[in-house]
Amino acid sequence: MSNTQPARGMRDFLPADIRKREYVIGVIKEVYQKYGFEPLETPSVENLETLMGKYGEEGNQLIFKILKRGEKLDVSAGEKGLSDLALRYDLTVPLARVVANYKDKLPKFFKRYQIQPVWRADRPARGRFREFYQCDVDAIGSKSMIVEAELCAAVSEILQRLGFEDFIINLNHREILRGMLEVCGVQEEKYSDALIALDKRDKIGNEGVLQELENRNVLTKEKTKELFIQFANLTEIVIDKYLDFPEAQLRGFSAEELEVLNTAIFTHLTEFMGENKSGQEALLSLKQILSLVKNTPAEGRVEINPNLARGLSYYTGAIFEINVPDLAGSLGGGGRYDGLIGMFGKEQIPACGFSLGLERILVVMEERGMFDELVKAGKLSIDSADVMIACFDENLVGESLKLAAELREKNLRVLVYPEASQKAKPMKYAEQIKVPFVCLLKQNENSEVQISFKNMQTGEQESVERESLAEKILF
Amino acid sequence: MSNTQPARGMRDFLPADIRKREYVIGVIKEVYQKYGFEPLETPSVENLETLMGKYGEEGNQLIFKILKRGEKLDVSAGEKGLSDLALRYDLTVPLARVVANYKDKLPKFFKRYQIQPVWRADRPARGRFREFYQCDVDAIGSKSMIVEAELCAAVSEILQRLGFEDFIINLNHREILRGMLEVCGVQEEKYSDALIALDKRDKIGNEGVLQELENRNVLTKEKTKELFIQFANLTEIVIDKYLDFPEAQLRGFSAEELEVLNTAIFTHLTEFMGENKSGQEALLSLKQILSLVKNTPAEGRVEINPNLARGLSYYTGAIFEINVPDLAGSLGGGGRYDGLIGMFGKEQIPACGFSLGLERILVVMEERGMFDELVKAGKLSIDSADVMIACFDENLVGESLKLAAELREKNLRVLVYPEASQKAKPMKYAEQIKVPFVCLLKQNENSEVQISFKNMQTGEQESVERESLAEKILF
Repeated sequence: MSNTQPARGMRDFLPADIRKREYVIGVIKEVYQKYGFEPLETPSVENLETLMGKYGEEGNQLIFKILKRGEKLDVSAGEKGLSDLALRYDLTVPLARVVANYKDKLPKFFKRYQIQPVWRADRPARGRFREFYQCDVDAIGSKSMIVEAELCAAVSEILQRLGFEDFIINLNHREILRGMLEVCGVQEEKYSDALIALDKRDKIGNEGVLQELENRNVLTKEKTKELFIQFANLTEIVIDKYLDFPEAQLRGFSAEELEVLNTAIFTHLTEFMGENKSGQEALLSLKQILSLVKNTPAEGRVEINPNLARGLSYYTGAIFEINVPDLAGSLGGGGRYDGLIGMFGKEQIPACGFSLGLERILVVMEERGMFDELVKAGKLSIDSADVMIACFDENLVGESLKLAAELREKNLRVLVYPEASQKAKPMKYAEQIKVPFVCLLKQNENSEVQISFKNMQTGEQESVERESLAEKILF
Repeated sequence: MSNTQPARGMRDFLPADIRKREYVIGVIKEVYQKYGFEPLETPSVENLETLMGKYGEEGNQLIFKILKRGEKLDVSAGEKGLSDLALRYDLTVPLARVVANYKDKLPKFFKRYQIQPVWRADRPARGRFREFYQCDVDAIGSKSMIVEAELCAAVSEILQRLGFEDFIINLNHREILRGMLEVCGVQEEKYSDALIALDKRDKIGNEGVLQELENRNVLTKEKTKELFIQFANLTEIVIDKYLDFPEAQLRGFSAEELEVLNTAIFTHLTEFMGENKSGQEALLSLKQILSLVKNTPAEGRVEINPNLARGLSYYTGAIFEINVPDLAGSLGGGGRYDGLIGMFGKEQIPACGFSLGLERILVVMEERGMFDELVKAGKLSIDSADVMIACFDENLVGESLKLAAELREKNLRVLVYPEASQKAKPMKYAEQIKVPFVCLLKQNENSEVQISFKNMQTGEQESVERESLAEKILF
């Protein structure tokens, strides 16, 4: 007898889980398609060299590598002799490879979605798994802010359709962060250190960030520190603004409240950025995104957040993150990465995308009881079948299958109890699997087949004509 | 610049591929559900010990193993120190693990389907990939032949719905093969060698099988050889019977023709099996399956084939394989495996299943032009969107997004051309991506927005009121 658990950090999904997952994936697909995105799938396994060096140091370490086979396995050559393939770590790097590879087959603007699992050898924790689904949507080939606006609209429509009322899309821009660092006089080689420190602000506060900046030798001049404190104060002002809307934290911001917030942040950021050209340009881009999402489902959902940094190293422009009040992490995130595809092909091709975290969305929906609402509203069915057929007599088994075939022709989901059996057994089973109706086949004294029809919810039982059976089940 | 090809034996699926794959998967899911099967998913990665020793020697060698990480990696300890996880090789062994693990949560009869990729480190060849989808359907917990009959009915309905008219389900039974070997006087320890040889009959003929049996020392006595030749002749008789229906090879057998064939095979097998008890019982089981599939979509599709052996070692009862005339391999196969779950749990639980090979089904459908038929019949859509919106003026970009939002509210799939541009560019793009309609936004002299609507198929262009736009696209 062996261990029957799934491998560490991996999960089995039983039917009830899958029904919920497929419902959410169905909504995501439908909305992505409404926004003109087309489906793409890439293999789970990539050449190791495709993935290495794209995610930063931490990412590299979390990649699951696959052991070479047969003669190719060379234990004496260290890790290099051991592995040449790996499980994909995200869906963005494979997309960049695909765009570079099929350049001539794909349209100049290529809008694709991709919903597949990714693997990371992370330490498993609550809500953190080693295999999890990402729902990515990316637009390739345009630098227009229409792309960013449409992405925000699409993910907003998805979350609204799923029943989320209180999400916010945090928006920032890598060039704002860069401009801010320039203004503060940080040396260019220290930028990534500075961003890593800033990214932790949620957890360690302004004091913590300053401490970490000192530790990493980012603040080399007194002036730098002073300016950093000024920037920190700016984010404090934003937080103060929040306090003007105490209830909004719970119920979510209204479009008007968000506009007040965004205006305040813009004013301060513009002032702080001063003459910094790329920073000011980035601010204009964000303004344009805010203007374009008006009249779309993202209206009143986008908040400028100068603290947002995003971990991945390949972003070059706007960056996003979706938050809800009752989740510490994010429901999804993304951004513009105009340099990544050029790492695979001859040509630099601009790109921007969003990734929704299916597992996080499911966790929040489960905790909020949103699936129960969907079941009540008739949008999600969790019944294992529409009707079960059973018989007491071995002679009637063929008749059971014939009746099943008739009902299936009418597109009903029909379960045949697999054994001719006493009444109690199939009824107990029908209760256990929660099937709403049961048909019992019997033979009367003249050897005619009779159908006894039971409504499992009301307990009512009646004799029913074969012809009217499908109608009884459907209505 | 790096290699942008997918890894060896792996494939990228562009949008047109995915639409076809999803259509087929959609039909398979819908039919499985109609037969009362419920969805299940298991992780791609399993503990190595879960997979090892379940598939036989060849299977073991084809398992993709995952490199241990960090401190756990011990190069000095040989392969054992290198890997503790592996990619799943099929969907049956993970199912057996799941059934043993969630025994108390799952119903006594558990009917599940599972459509997921599996990985095998096979030498890639035409139609043979290292990552490919299996569409499995299994019924757990019953020894009744209803299970076999329902499985045959379900896969038959799927193939018919997809447009296959000429498939045959070959049916045999492991106990018939065993009984046949007993009758021939083969020693028990030589059974698996004998089955491997028999399985090759399609390729090497009766002479080749006999030669291989000699080489493997299966035919130790003169009597054994004689009986084997007798058995071989029996299969020759079956082949002779085929010759009675020369056209059937091309058009597929009719139900009546199949009945004639099956009756002939039964007669000869019954005679050959003589007093062999388990062989005779197995023959009765097959008779029962043939009787139960009457009045189901599998009627006239099942052919008794005493040569069918199936490679996997875990089968214990009925075995199946689906064939079409224009494919050397099979479209799917399966069988009863009453011993496998017991390898994971305390309890022996009977089980029987079918696995459809998605890739093979797609290959045949493509080669036969079946997808073109589906597109013509309006069952499969390959358009990337229902309509594209473009504008010539930067001022109208916001208006484009607003119009897109209105049309999307009516569930249309809308693509917004991401740049305000001269007329030629978006039109060329619309042609390339094959979108059926284009809306061009312009401003007239009074700064009013006007919509010019173009049917890309007819080339007709007209001015259209905003309100009637959705209707124009839908009909």
